[in-house]
Amino acid sequence: MQHPGKKNAFYAQSGGVSAVINASACGVIETALRRTRHIGKVYAGRDGIIGALTEDLLDLGRESAATIRALRHTPGGAFGSARFKLKSIEQNRAEYERLIEVFRAHDIGYFFYNGGNDSMDTALKVSQIGESLGYPIVCVGVPKTVDNDLPHTDCCPGFGSVAKYVALCTREAALDVASMARTSTRVFVFEVMGRHAGWIAAATGLAGRKRSEPPHIILFPEIPFEAERFLERVAQCVTDYGYCVVAVSEGAAYADGRFLAEAGTRDAFGHAQLGGVAPVVADMIRQRHGYKYHWAVADYLQRAARHVASKVDVEQAYAVGKAAVELALQGNNAVMPTIVRKRSKPYRWTIDHVPLAEVANRERKVPREYITADGFGITAACRRYLEPLIAGEDYPPYRDGLPDYVHIKGVPVRRRLKTRYQI
Amino acid sequence: MQHPGKKNAFYAQSGGVSAVINASACGVIETALRRTRHIGKVYAGRDGIIGALTEDLLDLGRESAATIRALRHTPGGAFGSARFKLKSIEQNRAEYERLIEVFRAHDIGYFFYNGGNDSMDTALKVSQIGESLGYPIVCVGVPKTVDNDLPHTDCCPGFGSVAKYVALCTREAALDVASMARTSTRVFVFEVMGRHAGWIAAATGLAGRKRSEPPHIILFPEIPFEAERFLERVAQCVTDYGYCVVAVSEGAAYADGRFLAEAGTRDAFGHAQLGGVAPVVADMIRQRHGYKYHWAVADYLQRAARHVASKVDVEQAYAVGKAAVELALQGNNAVMPTIVRKRSKPYRWTIDHVPLAEVANRERKVPREYITADGFGITAACRRYLEPLIAGEDYPPYRDGLPDYVHIKGVPVRRRLKTRYQI
Repeated sequence: MQHPGKKNAFYAQSGGVSAVINASACGVIETALRRTRHIGKVYAGRDGIIGALTEDLLDLGRESAATIRALRHTPGGAFGSARFKLKSIEQNRAEYERLIEVFRAHDIGYFFYNGGNDSMDTALKVSQIGESLGYPIVCVGVPKTVDNDLPHTDCCPGFGSVAKYVALCTREAALDVASMARTSTRVFVFEVMGRHAGWIAAATGLAGRKRSEPPHIILFPEIPFEAERFLERVAQCVTDYGYCVVAVSEGAAYADGRFLAEAGTRDAFGHAQLGGVAPVVADMIRQRHGYKYHWAVADYLQRAARHVASKVDVEQAYAVGKAAVELALQGNNAVMPTIVRKRSKPYRWTIDHVPLAEVANRERKVPREYITADGFGITAACRRYLEPLIAGEDYPPYRDGLPDYVHIKGVPVRRRLKTRYQI
Repeated sequence: MQHPGKKNAFYAQSGGVSAVINASACGVIETALRRTRHIGKVYAGRDGIIGALTEDLLDLGRESAATIRALRHTPGGAFGSARFKLKSIEQNRAEYERLIEVFRAHDIGYFFYNGGNDSMDTALKVSQIGESLGYPIVCVGVPKTVDNDLPHTDCCPGFGSVAKYVALCTREAALDVASMARTSTRVFVFEVMGRHAGWIAAATGLAGRKRSEPPHIILFPEIPFEAERFLERVAQCVTDYGYCVVAVSEGAAYADGRFLAEAGTRDAFGHAQLGGVAPVVADMIRQRHGYKYHWAVADYLQRAARHVASKVDVEQAYAVGKAAVELALQGNNAVMPTIVRKRSKPYRWTIDHVPLAEVANRERKVPREYITADGFGITAACRRYLEPLIAGEDYPPYRDGLPDYVHIKGVPVRRRLKTRYQI
């Protein structure tokens, strides 16, 4: 397919945000704004794809170059994101037709969609429906997910920074626990994200090298939880090392698929347990062993932790954004840039691409050979895979003691359609 | 009192550790090791005061200068700390006599005790009992507490770094929530430490300047919690800003003194709620308003977050350690170095000292004039007080993508006493 002549470009963020999704935005926008021969205006959807459906577009040409540049060091989704999965074409053709209507009204020929598996599926469908409605649009996905579960790419932008953060937190908190263990806290439980894939949990393993070094136990979603075996190991660690640090994925589950965090405990009013697998695991340990414990739930802190982002991750996030625009202008459609590992030590990577059809709705879990035989740790192979992804620091600028993050002006594009769209 | 001729020095860490307690250790040790005319060996207690009672001493002269230097950037308590409050002299004179016995056996003439209110009380008593047992010992407290509740000092080393961390986390997580609010999370609840004083909660207020900027609501231990007023404010924020960020102190309590975190909810087995005030507050909001929420409990992550320590805090932590040794050698006994604010903007401070008797067992809470009239925010005066304390970054060195923290060798001092002591 040839690129569609000079057309406007549309960029949107989708799903859970990350510390570096704006770095990808920066890559897309800076590149698109420079390609003035082929790209006219560069727009973003306010609140992701919802902005396209409701014709709520932001004119990125009206932002200063400094603001766009500062997106590279600003976490969160600068234009708003959305948890809004388009239904299948059969179920809701009107949604897709509306998108094409808006794109047509604003002469948009390029659609850059920054998200995970679901979003790649949406981008693919938009490309197909555009074709069938006689308004061909170049759709390029920009990979993003802290869960690191997209196939065909060495890693997913967003993951490296979370990985660095959780490994660092584990190392720091473990020093605290080790200091206190003689008379106080013996067990520390740290809950991290990753409902279906244990990549983030695995990354906590980077905090230590030897078996004696924390985290002593990692609970992966990929390994069915066995309470007895786990509790025995906790006691063994306290005996051997004086304390025990446990990293647990929010997706840790029993063999029958029940999440630990939804293990059926209810409060006095019959409400389901208030959530968080860390307190559940900590309480199991208290009941069995009586150890004094502490627990932490990092939640959004982990995926917003731009202050200690991985330099490699920031560079890759920018690179896939830039590559998305270049791929589009080279005549590619319905593709996603991927990161290809050339070497692990030192880490060498390049950008390639795959058809969206090969990415959409597929999930990459932690392979069994990355998890130790006992199911509680990471192997040397896993460490070789993970270590390069957390390399380097890329500190944001500070003002008055805090990171100086940017907010966009957000200049709206004048509406051209009479019709309104209700979400 | 004159200084006691050439004697050995003993240093111990006490209570909850911090990101910079080792920076104070570094200040004490580097200064003491240089003062060879008056100080012989420099020892630390393994696991704090317990090391003194059990004659478990570490010879710090056997650590490399590089290791001692690296303590400045290493969080946690490098020698181990202890939650072990000595009883009153009337209740357990034997404990104090044992301390003096060990100090005498090892020719220890200087006792540097790094802790909070309780520890200052202990240091004072040790000084008194030494005198009465005919083994005078110079006791100097080294202030440390993330709770910032010691009187007579502008702030407490340890606090500035937690303050910086929680303000930064609030700013970062709020960007995440703001991105997601249209279709997903509307409310984010962030739990911070501070069981009796709301200094850490107050510091989250530094994340925003305007009323519209997060955190929108801070729950202080100093302000009795009123559920109705709180829930109304949450709804107002969601209406006005699209989302609401709540920072809650673990010490938030009802007017009758009950902590929110112990609000009587029990699980199906009759166990008390698994702890954490954040999930309790988040669930209150869900029940009333039905908003989708997320919550985070930073727990040890906040007080171990050396990776983003306040430069001012690190400098003050080192300075009080250094000053403690200098005060002792200048003939002061039963004192604690204090930080004196000369100016707020730009921040200028010096070191002075107060008698331990004026510090021991006293607690400084957040004054009412630092909290807005509605009880949910911080005033300009509070901001003027807090802002200098989080100024500057003092990044640790990194290796393989993670902070390169040091572990001491920990060379034990040969025991000289026949008697054993059971804790």
